[in-house]
Amino acid sequence: MGKVFVLAPDSFKESMTAKEVCEAMEIGIKRAIPDAECIHVPMADGGEGTVQSLIDATGGTLEKKEVTGPLGTKVVAGYGILGDGKTAVIEMAAASGIHFVTKETKNPLITTTYGTGELIKDCIEQGITDIILGIGGSATNDGGTGMAAALGYKFLDEDGKELKLGGGFLDRLATIDTSNVIPGLRDVHILVASDVTNPLCGEHGASRVFGPQKGATPEMVEILDNNLRHYAQVVKDQLGIDVLNVPGAGAAGGLGAGLLAFTNATMKKGIEIVIEYTNLKEKLRHADYCFTGEGGIDFQTKFGKTPYGVAKVAKSVNPNMKVIALAGYIGKDVEVLYEEGFDAIFGIVPGAAELSTLLKQGSENVARTAESVARLLR
Amino acid sequence: MGKVFVLAPDSFKESMTAKEVCEAMEIGIKRAIPDAECIHVPMADGGEGTVQSLIDATGGTLEKKEVTGPLGTKVVAGYGILGDGKTAVIEMAAASGIHFVTKETKNPLITTTYGTGELIKDCIEQGITDIILGIGGSATNDGGTGMAAALGYKFLDEDGKELKLGGGFLDRLATIDTSNVIPGLRDVHILVASDVTNPLCGEHGASRVFGPQKGATPEMVEILDNNLRHYAQVVKDQLGIDVLNVPGAGAAGGLGAGLLAFTNATMKKGIEIVIEYTNLKEKLRHADYCFTGEGGIDFQTKFGKTPYGVAKVAKSVNPNMKVIALAGYIGKDVEVLYEEGFDAIFGIVPGAAELSTLLKQGSENVARTAESVARLLR
Repeated sequence: MGKVFVLAPDSFKESMTAKEVCEAMEIGIKRAIPDAECIHVPMADGGEGTVQSLIDATGGTLEKKEVTGPLGTKVVAGYGILGDGKTAVIEMAAASGIHFVTKETKNPLITTTYGTGELIKDCIEQGITDIILGIGGSATNDGGTGMAAALGYKFLDEDGKELKLGGGFLDRLATIDTSNVIPGLRDVHILVASDVTNPLCGEHGASRVFGPQKGATPEMVEILDNNLRHYAQVVKDQLGIDVLNVPGAGAAGGLGAGLLAFTNATMKKGIEIVIEYTNLKEKLRHADYCFTGEGGIDFQTKFGKTPYGVAKVAKSVNPNMKVIALAGYIGKDVEVLYEEGFDAIFGIVPGAAELSTLLKQGSENVARTAESVARLLR
Repeated sequence: MGKVFVLAPDSFKESMTAKEVCEAMEIGIKRAIPDAECIHVPMADGGEGTVQSLIDATGGTLEKKEVTGPLGTKVVAGYGILGDGKTAVIEMAAASGIHFVTKETKNPLITTTYGTGELIKDCIEQGITDIILGIGGSATNDGGTGMAAALGYKFLDEDGKELKLGGGFLDRLATIDTSNVIPGLRDVHILVASDVTNPLCGEHGASRVFGPQKGATPEMVEILDNNLRHYAQVVKDQLGIDVLNVPGAGAAGGLGAGLLAFTNATMKKGIEIVIEYTNLKEKLRHADYCFTGEGGIDFQTKFGKTPYGVAKVAKSVNPNMKVIALAGYIGKDVEVLYEEGFDAIFGIVPGAAELSTLLKQGSENVARTAESVARLLR
């Protein structure tokens, strides 16, 4: 029987989806070892590409829905239904991401997570019981109030009037009306993929750390931080939930806090969720070799990036299993990864070239490099 | 005992000498396998870098001498004395190379191999008994008459007057006067490193094939081709040596023919000479692995380039020995080399980058790649 290779790369951003990387790896490996058995496990780390990889890994489908973008205009957002038919996977950025705003229009006082709430609502109405929600890349700083509003929560001022959408108006929040929350919300479990452990407010809070990259001036940072603190106090007073200092509450402009306050949510590292839902460990059980990879690999890979998670699982299954990583870019101090379960790390770039050219050649470069590696493993 | 690695790369042009590549390979290998035994065999293929590599491989010395450049002005040319003290290694380009002429000054009617002859003469006067002569990269088309003139041959016209230097004047050649040839010339064996098999004249001859890149216009090509044909006839008539159709006579603007006519010369492929003089085969006898490499590797590598020669020798010593090649640039159809003794070929480039940057990072990129390869071989 042929050697078994588990192929568990992340996507190579702007070049190949994780599935396409798997396919290129298999082409190269089979050139060297024609009877190799290649098990494709397209991976992700909870960030961009997670929906595509989990669809590809489980045989799921991609759904599309028109929702409210971060600036209030309509956008088309994709999300995935996994192969089990009862689990959905959403990237908040698909509805409320920073790529929907420009240098001119970015304004975290008014951007909203409403569209993310619409996606959750759509899933619930379809009978989905579990949602995996990746919350990286947000354009928002609204504490998840937009998301909650889409699910039926009402955020009212002292006069009982609904607040406008956006973190800039939360100072006027007086009452949270829960009487119109959509049915079934609490029956759906939301597994939040987030590597961020920042609290909601303060020095390490959402507004101060992530606000500026979303367009917040120093004055806006002050307003947003104060508003989120007031919002947390109202949540605590009226719902009895204290989100102020929960690690991760500050993720995605406070969407972390909103999810914990208004939904049945648990937070977990993105790569751990993907490892679980792809059944990576089980698939590695009978593997001889594990290939992984990502567009870029460097010393930071050990802080929860996909290849790191894959290497750890592979070595936990079999300490002698060789783990080989391929990358389009090999950065600083990559050698530290040799102490973290990696056996070898190879660049796929064939020579001096511009990035735009290399992004187009990804598949052939992965295949060629995988072939050479496999020839050494024969 | 540790595994034995023979490191037999060519230079990475404009980045590292072959010796520097060996050193970088050893650094990487020893990071992975601290007790590895690394045997350095800096290689070359008879072209640029051959002098340096044979000096480095045999513990020889670099000599310098002022000689006549291709345009008649003085240039300083280096050549090597090998560790045995009796063999010299000369690159004709060091005295008569194309890099000594510019777009404006290149003119194969007047360029001369005189300086190459001066280097040969200098070796003979020092008591050298064997000369390895690499003849690539010439600026000349003089049939080697300049070289011969430096060794005492006189090329005379009908009036007994010496011809001017350069292939453009050979139509006036009437007599070759051998009475002043330097003593001992015939006692010295010249091993000519040349992969070129072109004849002296005609469609595949020196002037027509290589003349244009040395600055010959179509009219000049006609003149030079006719002149070399006339020259060959005079050589045949007066010395009894027929060089016209000898394969390789057309190398280096006919220097091949001149060497065969006027010296005790044998032609051989460059890589074969280097393999012989570096004792590569003997050094591979107890090796577990062979590393080779070159600045660029592609399908053309199999036409006599260094890594090809190294791979062939390694497999002839031990068909199971793994041969790994590293390259700064991996070109077209490199897979054909897998049928020629190569086990694996890896690029060393870490990501999108300009050539000028990569040329400076050569050593660290070789070391990093060698480390990953060695980790797979443990």
